[in-house]
Amino acid sequence: MQNDLIALNAEYAAAIDDDRLEEWPSFFTERCFYRITTAQNHQRGLPAGLVYADSRQMLADRILSLRKANVYERQGYRHLVSLPLVRSQDGERLRVETGFAVLRTVRNGSTDVFASGRYLDEVVRNRGALKLRRRDVVCDSSRIDTLLAIPL
Amino acid sequence: MQNDLIALNAEYAAAIDDDRLEEWPSFFTERCFYRITTAQNHQRGLPAGLVYADSRQMLADRILSLRKANVYERQGYRHLVSLPLVRSQDGERLRVETGFAVLRTVRNGSTDVFASGRYLDEVVRNRGALKLRRRDVVCDSSRIDTLLAIPL
Amino acid sequence: MQNDLIALNAEYAAAIDDDRLEEWPSFFTERCFYRITTAQNHQRGLPAGLVYADSRQMLADRILSLRKANVYERQGYRHLVSLPLVRSQDGERLRVETGFAVLRTVRNGSTDVFASGRYLDEVVRNRGALKLRRRDVVCDSSRIDTLLAIPL
Repeated sequence: MQNDLIALNAEYAAAIDDDRLEEWPSFFTERCFYRITTAQNHQRGLPAGLVYADSRQMLADRILSLRKANVYERQGYRHLVSLPLVRSQDGERLRVETGFAVLRTVRNGSTDVFASGRYLDEVVRNRGALKLRRRDVVCDSSRIDTLLAIPL
Repeated sequence: MQNDLIALNAEYAAAIDDDRLEEWPSFFTERCFYRITTAQNHQRGLPAGLVYADSRQMLADRILSLRKANVYERQGYRHLVSLPLVRSQDGERLRVETGFAVLRTVRNGSTDVFASGRYLDEVVRNRGALKLRRRDVVCDSSRIDTLLAIPL
Repeated sequence: MQNDLIALNAEYAAAIDDDRLEEWPSFFTERCFYRITTAQNHQRGLPAGLVYADSRQMLADRILSLRKANVYERQGYRHLVSLPLVRSQDGERLRVETGFAVLRTVRNGSTDVFASGRYLDEVVRNRGALKLRRRDVVCDSSRIDTLLAIPL
């Protein structure tokens, strides 16, 4: 199971970093929940997120908009994902927590930390493969880039 | 064993990053050794460390002081821990080396590299669970934040 | 196999970060291919690299020059290596992709991101041990330090 979780996170990160964004929704179940929020909002139990989707279709739509939008200037992203911590297991449903950081390389060539935080996931086994039924992306920073576009 | 070491490091990092500092001493054996030092001092064999403790009680005391001190302003920390390298094994005692980096997110929302270095550990199996008998935190930088407070 | 790949990458990173550069060529097969290039060049299929070697001897020579060169001021490097993704397997030959970042700590003590990118590897089993037959280091940034000296 541990190996499957590691592979899930590695594939997820590589799809985004390689700009294969159209593959991103396939890591989720059909009905799912995806949210980007801040540690502060998460701690206060505020439901609002910076980004929110509750179906695979919504995730796909998000990528479509992103591709069409002119504001989208492709920069280099590099996910660094920690080892997953399984918090609980209930049959085929796992609650998993995983630390991450995303580095960004801008046009002039310099690289900095774009985001860091943790994934709070609900993972299920779907026809053999692990899928995300829910991913809460809880960012350490409360200052999130307003042009935030790529999935985290 | 490799999986147990990975889990130990992941739990250790999550406890600190989630501000569950009171759990930190529980990763060590009752009698233990914990030190934060610099690569330069370590290379020269200087015993002095920036932070030093030789029992689990001393580690607990450190957290107590930290909680009481007003200078302690909670910032966001995020450990990124590499894969552990087992350097030697002598019965139930392992010598392990593990690279790490800690990102820090400050109030204005920006994130930078707070510390990087490697853990030089002596790990023992204690009633089934792996515990740190010794952890030398060797920081790459010789300029360590004088308000250095959180465990690394 | 996954564990062997993880160990290969961890040992490789530790050898460089500990300044045991003379061990670096031993991670490769006798006849091998090593290149550092940029994501932009790689995408365009440009063969030119910033650093290039096609034998273990060339790698060893590179380290020799590096040791002799006065420009080489030793700074602190810290590799953070992601989990390896096996892209294909053909008998004893694996194609593997692995994300990485390298932090650099300079003299005044500050730490920043020196490089990030991914390793595109061809790995073979050689008398029991995994060896790199080819490693393309594809850097996210197109601005690479002209004094680039250490292996990535």
